[in-house]
Amino acid sequence: MQIVMLAYPDMTQLDLTGPFEVFSRFPEMKIEIVWKGQDPVRDASGLRIIPSTCLADSPPADILFVPGGPGQLALMEDEEVLAFLRQQASGAAYVTSVCTGSLVLAAAGLLTGYRATCHWQSLPQLYLFGATPVSERVVIDRDRVTGAGVTSGIDFALVLAARIFGDELARAAQLTMEYDPKPPFSGGSPVHAEPSLTQTVVAAAAEFQALREAAARRAAAKLAG
Amino acid sequence: MQIVMLAYPDMTQLDLTGPFEVFSRFPEMKIEIVWKGQDPVRDASGLRIIPSTCLADSPPADILFVPGGPGQLALMEDEEVLAFLRQQASGAAYVTSVCTGSLVLAAAGLLTGYRATCHWQSLPQLYLFGATPVSERVVIDRDRVTGAGVTSGIDFALVLAARIFGDELARAAQLTMEYDPKPPFSGGSPVHAEPSLTQTVVAAAAEFQALREAAARRAAAKLAG
Repeated sequence: MQIVMLAYPDMTQLDLTGPFEVFSRFPEMKIEIVWKGQDPVRDASGLRIIPSTCLADSPPADILFVPGGPGQLALMEDEEVLAFLRQQASGAAYVTSVCTGSLVLAAAGLLTGYRATCHWQSLPQLYLFGATPVSERVVIDRDRVTGAGVTSGIDFALVLAARIFGDELARAAQLTMEYDPKPPFSGGSPVHAEPSLTQTVVAAAAEFQALREAAARRAAAKLAG
Repeated sequence: MQIVMLAYPDMTQLDLTGPFEVFSRFPEMKIEIVWKGQDPVRDASGLRIIPSTCLADSPPADILFVPGGPGQLALMEDEEVLAFLRQQASGAAYVTSVCTGSLVLAAAGLLTGYRATCHWQSLPQLYLFGATPVSERVVIDRDRVTGAGVTSGIDFALVLAARIFGDELARAAQLTMEYDPKPPFSGGSPVHAEPSLTQTVVAAAAEFQALREAAARRAAAKLAG
């Protein structure tokens, strides 16, 4: 079982490292982290991760995975990356993403006609690509499996691993990772957060979200045209 | 506010990348990832992370952080690392760890007389160093803040960030990371797991845990002697 995880500049590293940790607990899972070259990829906060291989040398994915993060804007208009994703998706058993990684899949046309999720702030942008946004932590629609924002990657990966390797092994992985979360606050999603907190977070991100939506509109127009 | 995060070969990368993600959401927080050189550090599952600086060039830590993982065994007997930790701890406002990183702090003598936690499988090893093991997800005892196994690093970092920057900013970070976890199974810790599952996980790790305990006994003897 080969998972190909895309890494890219200005990604949100936990979108990738959360699922990486889960998948690495299954001996049958072979993991490649791929990008254009093998120079370090610097995430949105400066963490530097080295890809294990480049796009051209990537093995065929059984699971294709795309993380999210600010760098996703550029990827939505990067024909080399979109072509890579389309080509890999055509042979993959699962086409997957976490956070705004789903907007990259969508820009490649890979979520058109599918139910999917995304970081809560960007979820409606999936409409632009003919996908159906679903406000759940993990969404499975046929062979598309998507996770919501950042930390949902751990839930996403455990759900997918349970599907592939069975509940028993997934439970063992969860226990080994001591995944019995106890968030200090209850408002980790807008469903549970104080409206005033959500308002503050939305306001702080407004400028960047406008850029993201503009990029999504351009990508959607290109996909349609 | 400077956090110095130790990285090392065969660490468990999520122990570090979970807290990194949380801390990176606070603009006042400066993060350094330190190891002996600046060559890539390969985690226990092959993820390669590049340190941002070396031990000798590390700035003084306000928060000193040590992740866990299989490589922790070697660290418990690595005088260069133990000396670095002792020196950094002497000026730090918080001395912290996740998972078996607490055994490294303990081997440096930094948990003697403190309540602390650790990955559930290794928690009793803290007794060897005169620390008091506490089976909780995050344990705060004066300026020592420790997290339990692997995924607890996210809870650990949010709890610590709330203490430093206040609940309001920590809540915003939690919402931005969409940390509203929904594990697929309930048995993420031995408290909630089926005994037969815990038994399976313990049996699978028995050989390595014996090595870990032997290393802890050697380190504790050295510390005492």
